[in-house]
Amino acid sequence: MSAPVFREIKGDPRCRARLGELRCAHGTVPTPIFMPVGTLATVKAVPPRDLEEAGAKIILGNTYHLFLRPGHELIAALGGLHRFMGWDRPILTDSGGFQIFSLEELAEISEEGAAFRSHIDGSRLFLSPEKAVEVQQALGSDIMMALDTCIPYPAGYDTAARATELTGRWARRCRAAHTRRELLLFGIVQGGMFPELRRMAAEELVDIGFDGYAIGGVSVGEPVEEMREMTRVSAELLPRERPVYLMGVGTPEDLVESVSMGVDMFDCVMPTRNARNGMLFTSTGRIVIKNSRFRDDPGPVDEECDCYNCRNFSRAYLRHLYVSREILASYLNTVHNLRYYLRLMEGMREAIAAGRFIEFREEFYRKRGATPPVR
Amino acid sequence: MSAPVFREIKGDPRCRARLGELRCAHGTVPTPIFMPVGTLATVKAVPPRDLEEAGAKIILGNTYHLFLRPGHELIAALGGLHRFMGWDRPILTDSGGFQIFSLEELAEISEEGAAFRSHIDGSRLFLSPEKAVEVQQALGSDIMMALDTCIPYPAGYDTAARATELTGRWARRCRAAHTRRELLLFGIVQGGMFPELRRMAAEELVDIGFDGYAIGGVSVGEPVEEMREMTRVSAELLPRERPVYLMGVGTPEDLVESVSMGVDMFDCVMPTRNARNGMLFTSTGRIVIKNSRFRDDPGPVDEECDCYNCRNFSRAYLRHLYVSREILASYLNTVHNLRYYLRLMEGMREAIAAGRFIEFREEFYRKRGATPPVR
Repeated sequence: MSAPVFREIKGDPRCRARLGELRCAHGTVPTPIFMPVGTLATVKAVPPRDLEEAGAKIILGNTYHLFLRPGHELIAALGGLHRFMGWDRPILTDSGGFQIFSLEELAEISEEGAAFRSHIDGSRLFLSPEKAVEVQQALGSDIMMALDTCIPYPAGYDTAARATELTGRWARRCRAAHTRRELLLFGIVQGGMFPELRRMAAEELVDIGFDGYAIGGVSVGEPVEEMREMTRVSAELLPRERPVYLMGVGTPEDLVESVSMGVDMFDCVMPTRNARNGMLFTSTGRIVIKNSRFRDDPGPVDEECDCYNCRNFSRAYLRHLYVSREILASYLNTVHNLRYYLRLMEGMREAIAAGRFIEFREEFYRKRGATPPVR
Repeated sequence: MSAPVFREIKGDPRCRARLGELRCAHGTVPTPIFMPVGTLATVKAVPPRDLEEAGAKIILGNTYHLFLRPGHELIAALGGLHRFMGWDRPILTDSGGFQIFSLEELAEISEEGAAFRSHIDGSRLFLSPEKAVEVQQALGSDIMMALDTCIPYPAGYDTAARATELTGRWARRCRAAHTRRELLLFGIVQGGMFPELRRMAAEELVDIGFDGYAIGGVSVGEPVEEMREMTRVSAELLPRERPVYLMGVGTPEDLVESVSMGVDMFDCVMPTRNARNGMLFTSTGRIVIKNSRFRDDPGPVDEECDCYNCRNFSRAYLRHLYVSREILASYLNTVHNLRYYLRLMEGMREAIAAGRFIEFREEFYRKRGATPPVR
């Protein structure tokens, strides 16, 4: 019998935070982990070697985007996604369900799958659960996601129930289509904002049996308290011997809170997208680099940060690059924000290992002049 | 007596190509050399450490652009241009004359200097010879350029003569304003397409006495044969104990031909700008990466190239990034094109050192299926 996909190394007696490791075809990933988003076979603006330097252990690709452009068959012919984009550590690909939901206003969901029009050239396309797995196997993703149907917010119980049940049937078909078993397949818990539906979804997915479980359909417009509550409810429903992945979340605060609820994996466009828009994360809070108060500021973005940006450049220089619309601004800002997120995760892993996650959380809030939310 | 600014290490008995070294405040630069253009305190899309890796020994900044944004006083307050942009090797700054000529349609040139409107906010600005030196001294440029007046193409003899004479008087005022003598000051030979004016300009500049001499006012729209002829004429007029800098030139072929005429230094936006537009230089000629024939091409841009791009990525991936408008395309393409230019210069330096520059030139053309122009 081979080693388990996921191993919990150390738990925290005072909350559900835990240190673990996740075995993937391209290496073992320490958890809790943040995965930078590399939508189109590139984490925007950052070369792979700089991602490694920033501490990225696993990144995310988008099945939907790569299916459209350049196409999974082309990528497979060129040796798979890792080789194509020059990244030899693990890659997780989402299934395309969320993109069809968010990008394709004219998508038609049927029992069979999702029919939609390409946002690039308008061509008609069809993504079934089997096709989603086929595409991800062709890409060679270390972790593939089952195709799901995302539920808008707000949604009534009946709408949410129907979508959740369909996601369950699709999950079963994905599992049946999964032939490259060295690549992991995760199921996605939907259920809208209804704990009972979340419970039914989790039970069905566990019955099918996946290598890991994701919490989907949060961060879709609901208030942050509701998002946190759904995360907590969903995480508690999932088996502790499998990794738990919270999709598309979130702020640094969201990451800290979700880790305390037992979440092991995260992805979010926030560090990369906000970087390109000039918003930078620091240990004391966020800054908007174009602000005129940084015009002659000789200090780094974050005194605590060890990234290439903070070691070499001033806020004044970054402001100059940003207001001058220089491409280098996107690179330097993204390098910093990713390092901030990845350092935050490193800090949490170290704190769990040292049995002081609760103290780490308190210090995290104290530095930004805040107090931890009541849990 | 201190060591000379420029030292010719080895000449070529069959042409005017020569190996040399140029002593600057921030280090000694081997010649012939190509200087990547870093207009606004950044070589577009490329971090300083990647420039070093590509082999850049000296880069160029733009007095005009930095004067407008963020301003030389701000840069001086932050420790100078090197520190501001995180580059500790030499920097040459042009004087702003060419930018006023090319960007400011409403510039008014008088004996005193150039009055113009900012292309950013329309504010009225004035650049005199003294101000151009003051700005460059504040930036801390290793090599400063005297303020010149550029001559449009075509221009009649009288127009060219008046502008050339004014450039001479401005050069004298720049020299008088030059107080930070550890920073070098170069004069610029104008004269339009008239060899007699070029001769007068060179004689006047040599009479004033500069640390080096630049050939200006070429590559302003004239046919390539005329550009080469003006380069040859001008280079032969300049003292061999000083470096000769051909401004704003040019193609790989221009570099090879100009080195054979005795030029030591070059700058041009071509490798960087063309990279951002998807045009890549290779040892066998140029390629346009968006071309559909590269769609599934697994090979590197240039089999001969040792850059980060060519060592790790395929033409198919670069095409995908370019057609997807990914920022990483600008980075990877620029890294390659700069390495191509810098490797070409390295090849010329090695060939001169080995006494085989003429053979290098022949091989350079042979690889691209061409023959050297008759000289």
